[in-house]
Amino acid sequence: MPEPHVTNVSIYYEDTDHSGLVYHANYLKYAERSREHVLGRESLVALYRDEGVGFVVYKAEMVFREGARFGDELEVRTTVEMASTYRLIFRQPVFRRGGATPLVEILIELVAVDAQNKLVRLPPTIQAMVAERFPA
Amino acid sequence: MPEPHVTNVSIYYEDTDHSGLVYHANYLKYAERSREHVLGRESLVALYRDEGVGFVVYKAEMVFREGARFGDELEVRTTVEMASTYRLIFRQPVFRRGGATPLVEILIELVAVDAQNKLVRLPPTIQAMVAERFPA
Amino acid sequence: MPEPHVTNVSIYYEDTDHSGLVYHANYLKYAERSREHVLGRESLVALYRDEGVGFVVYKAEMVFREGARFGDELEVRTTVEMASTYRLIFRQPVFRRGGATPLVEILIELVAVDAQNKLVRLPPTIQAMVAERFPA
Amino acid sequence: MPEPHVTNVSIYYEDTDHSGLVYHANYLKYAERSREHVLGRESLVALYRDEGVGFVVYKAEMVFREGARFGDELEVRTTVEMASTYRLIFRQPVFRRGGATPLVEILIELVAVDAQNKLVRLPPTIQAMVAERFPA
Repeated sequence: MPEPHVTNVSIYYEDTDHSGLVYHANYLKYAERSREHVLGRESLVALYRDEGVGFVVYKAEMVFREGARFGDELEVRTTVEMASTYRLIFRQPVFRRGGATPLVEILIELVAVDAQNKLVRLPPTIQAMVAERFPA
Repeated sequence: MPEPHVTNVSIYYEDTDHSGLVYHANYLKYAERSREHVLGRESLVALYRDEGVGFVVYKAEMVFREGARFGDELEVRTTVEMASTYRLIFRQPVFRRGGATPLVEILIELVAVDAQNKLVRLPPTIQAMVAERFPA
Repeated sequence: MPEPHVTNVSIYYEDTDHSGLVYHANYLKYAERSREHVLGRESLVALYRDEGVGFVVYKAEMVFREGARFGDELEVRTTVEMASTYRLIFRQPVFRRGGATPLVEILIELVAVDAQNKLVRLPPTIQAMVAERFPA
Repeated sequence: MPEPHVTNVSIYYEDTDHSGLVYHANYLKYAERSREHVLGRESLVALYRDEGVGFVVYKAEMVFREGARFGDELEVRTTVEMASTYRLIFRQPVFRRGGATPLVEILIELVAVDAQNKLVRLPPTIQAMVAERFPA
């Protein structure tokens, strides 16, 4: 099994709501920050600027097991699987730093689109990165 | 079939990202605004203030079919089903106003918790409201 | 004195933080929603799509006098002054609905930019709207 | 002159809007993340949990000189001045990493409140930290 990519997330005032816990939608932001690091932020900028290619979420599934609070230090542990040459599946459970059981489980299906928002094949550089970093 | 509750959502600058489309996590916010109107905002405030009871999302599933843009006027069409005395299932597809095909499909499972974040039965007022407004 | 434009804002879970009050930065969102309605959402979409002209905040000043809470119904009362043919000044105090004293006072200076983010004169349609709706 | 505290901020999809630039209100979030690090996140958690003391923004002033984009790496350079035993003034210009001219200038006045949202004197630990880290 390939090691997950770990992205650290600090929980600030902005992340919480009046229940005292992190607002549920924000976990999708943390998952996306992690995906950007996995795919490579400079690659993403270059693909978008030079080829008009971007990535969009096609499907998201989340299960919330425990809430995080202000001051918590979390980590998103991301692994990627290439479901086809069109579609990436990210598993992105969120833990307290070093924790053994996830607070939130997140599964994301990502596809690539061109400047007209038409579905396109995953860029070769992305395919190669996934194959190398997360071998099946 | 009971009529869905319709909640209008205007798409502002704040809702979009640099792709020109609405940022994916924001649809969870629109769904939650709609749930608050369905459950009753005054009821939610009273339950929280008087009994320490709040609602938390246990599960979320989203499928993104088409992106909304700045200036769009959307509507969330919400129906509710009581899966048990502990759990509500909301179906909350998001349409352009008056549209026939959803831009995003959202399914949310909601549970109630007390002030210690322990699972509790759905408050009787909420159960009665769901049974009346969305009969099985 | 011209009547202010009034924009209603409902406070949802998403708006609050763990203090129980609305997160301070969110008031800038409410002010922007109101500016979009004052300038005309369809005009803004057309200017951006047809001429590449958008509006950016140059300066913001906020004074926070009282916090809003989950369930509150607020209103932004917006008036506009044309400081020059390049710059609009918005006064946008935020009240509880029908309230007499503002929770937050907001002053915004707005300028127009072209597709290269270069400063441009305020579009004539915008100048005419301000002169008619908010006569000096 | 005391050295500023530097807080790094990466610009993700979530930070931008459809103009391609960072949404203006988000800079207030970056400034707050930086203030939390300056004041000490563990101290803030302890003060809130043990004494019910929190911090609220009383005043905010922002000047926007240049927009940041997706993929940018920013830094908030924060210095603090104790205006009185009730009020801290934060100067928090935002730069591109290592940059010489600020993209955004931010001035924040912060006060402390108790669990009833009544103004209280700045906690002694905070006063001592400011006096040591940012001597007048």
